[in-house]
Amino acid sequence: MSLLVTGSIGIDTVETPFGKRDDVIGGSAVYFAYASSFFTPVRLVGVVGEDAPKSLFNVFEGRDVDAGGLEVRKGSKTFRWHGSYLKDLNEAVTVEVDLNVLAERAPKIPANFLDSKYVFLANTHPALQQQMLASLTQPKLIVADTMNLWIQTQRDELVKLLSQIHGLVLNDGEARLLTGKKNLIEAGRDVLKLGPKFVVIKKGEHGSLLCSDRDTFVLPAFPADRVVDPTGAGDSFAGGMMGYLSTQGSFSPATIKRALAFGTVVASFTIADFSLAGLQAATREAIDERFSEFKRAMDF
Amino acid sequence: MSLLVTGSIGIDTVETPFGKRDDVIGGSAVYFAYASSFFTPVRLVGVVGEDAPKSLFNVFEGRDVDAGGLEVRKGSKTFRWHGSYLKDLNEAVTVEVDLNVLAERAPKIPANFLDSKYVFLANTHPALQQQMLASLTQPKLIVADTMNLWIQTQRDELVKLLSQIHGLVLNDGEARLLTGKKNLIEAGRDVLKLGPKFVVIKKGEHGSLLCSDRDTFVLPAFPADRVVDPTGAGDSFAGGMMGYLSTQGSFSPATIKRALAFGTVVASFTIADFSLAGLQAATREAIDERFSEFKRAMDF
Repeated sequence: MSLLVTGSIGIDTVETPFGKRDDVIGGSAVYFAYASSFFTPVRLVGVVGEDAPKSLFNVFEGRDVDAGGLEVRKGSKTFRWHGSYLKDLNEAVTVEVDLNVLAERAPKIPANFLDSKYVFLANTHPALQQQMLASLTQPKLIVADTMNLWIQTQRDELVKLLSQIHGLVLNDGEARLLTGKKNLIEAGRDVLKLGPKFVVIKKGEHGSLLCSDRDTFVLPAFPADRVVDPTGAGDSFAGGMMGYLSTQGSFSPATIKRALAFGTVVASFTIADFSLAGLQAATREAIDERFSEFKRAMDF
Repeated sequence: MSLLVTGSIGIDTVETPFGKRDDVIGGSAVYFAYASSFFTPVRLVGVVGEDAPKSLFNVFEGRDVDAGGLEVRKGSKTFRWHGSYLKDLNEAVTVEVDLNVLAERAPKIPANFLDSKYVFLANTHPALQQQMLASLTQPKLIVADTMNLWIQTQRDELVKLLSQIHGLVLNDGEARLLTGKKNLIEAGRDVLKLGPKFVVIKKGEHGSLLCSDRDTFVLPAFPADRVVDPTGAGDSFAGGMMGYLSTQGSFSPATIKRALAFGTVVASFTIADFSLAGLQAATREAIDERFSEFKRAMDF
């Protein structure tokens, strides 16, 4: 079942204790699309400037990703982000960010993508997220991500979005900011009151938490003794989760749990190397094997 | 199989967002003894001053705790701790601490306790921990706790202790301080090089991590939407863990995993109320029921 993702596509410069990489491929939609393509065909919608490097267009070679929704906008520049994890591997410090083309109008969803049933609205302005959502004709599962910037400056639009989606994925700091609740289970339950059927709170190295009206579920991160570059871990987690959900007919608590575990496992590949190299080294077989290992480890 | 615990016994004043309690029963050995007594007979060794309140001597009424090693020292005062969780429920701020009798000589282990096979050396000066250990005649499983104070000021004695024990339990900050490693799996492995066969790193609301030469295992905390008083959670965790281990013949990775899960579940009762009230409201049946619930939740 086709999974539509729309979000940022960018050029990153990243510094971690393991080194520095200049001008590598990044962006929430890129990590998400790559991660979810291990499970299901993916439709990518995004926009870059005419300066986008050729490597960006090759990144999905051999993957089942339809980049027909990737717009190259003349006269615009690609989104750029420079982040550092030198102080704390669990939290990026933004050294520099240039929104560039992301500050302009949203990309157009191609006509042949409008029947997508599974939709992930990666982090962007909540008004744009609603706009893109409105054009879809038969969405069955809509999940969105967001960030502190929109919680602080566009709360009304974000609250409107929340009433139109099934699931929200966000990190612990964002959940606390959105609800004013320190306890993450309380925070998750408060988000549910705004509309979503389930909320997934990402806690970085501490794993993730699922809240729905039927279930509260906590899952640790996959134990990693070597975190080279955490960039894209959250998007890969969401990609693995949504990729798996897109292959399932129902969204029972058990199915969503397994989806979280797949997300956890896929993210563990991402953080093992810079940029997309960790995901590129993965295979569906390696993911399934690590999933079994994780499941076994959690069986006490 | 009898489990010996020695550690602090004290009078606490605790402030949390849920209120303040003055002069309540506390101390690492008290929480540990109560928690482990759900699983096995417990032998308690500790010392208080002649000011110890009568309620302290009633606290184990109806529990299988032999307080024959509880010394009431004339002319001495009981250990007192005043802590606040008003700023952060995950980390106590010590408002005031009076070591009192804990700064004097160690309590004596009664002759009929010297054959104890299972031993937990709760947090105290590592030289005293070694001294008490030396008098035991046939220990089979020795596990110790420690704290940042000893890591910083008594590292040599602590390293000596580590070569004489099977397991170490400590929190994440202490593990990082002891090893200089930020990554907790790396930190755990470095501790193993100092002697112990296994290390359990407690991460508060984020659960726990087990490192042994055969296994790395992460476990989330039991989801709690209402944490009233986290005092004693770590000691209750250790108590549940050691209590369960004391009933098992072997210490296979699977057994230690289950022990961690029992520790997690017992601690979840402790934090639900002030002082010992949370544990006092628990029963072995309720613990087993929550253990099954936790196991089921972790099965994805």
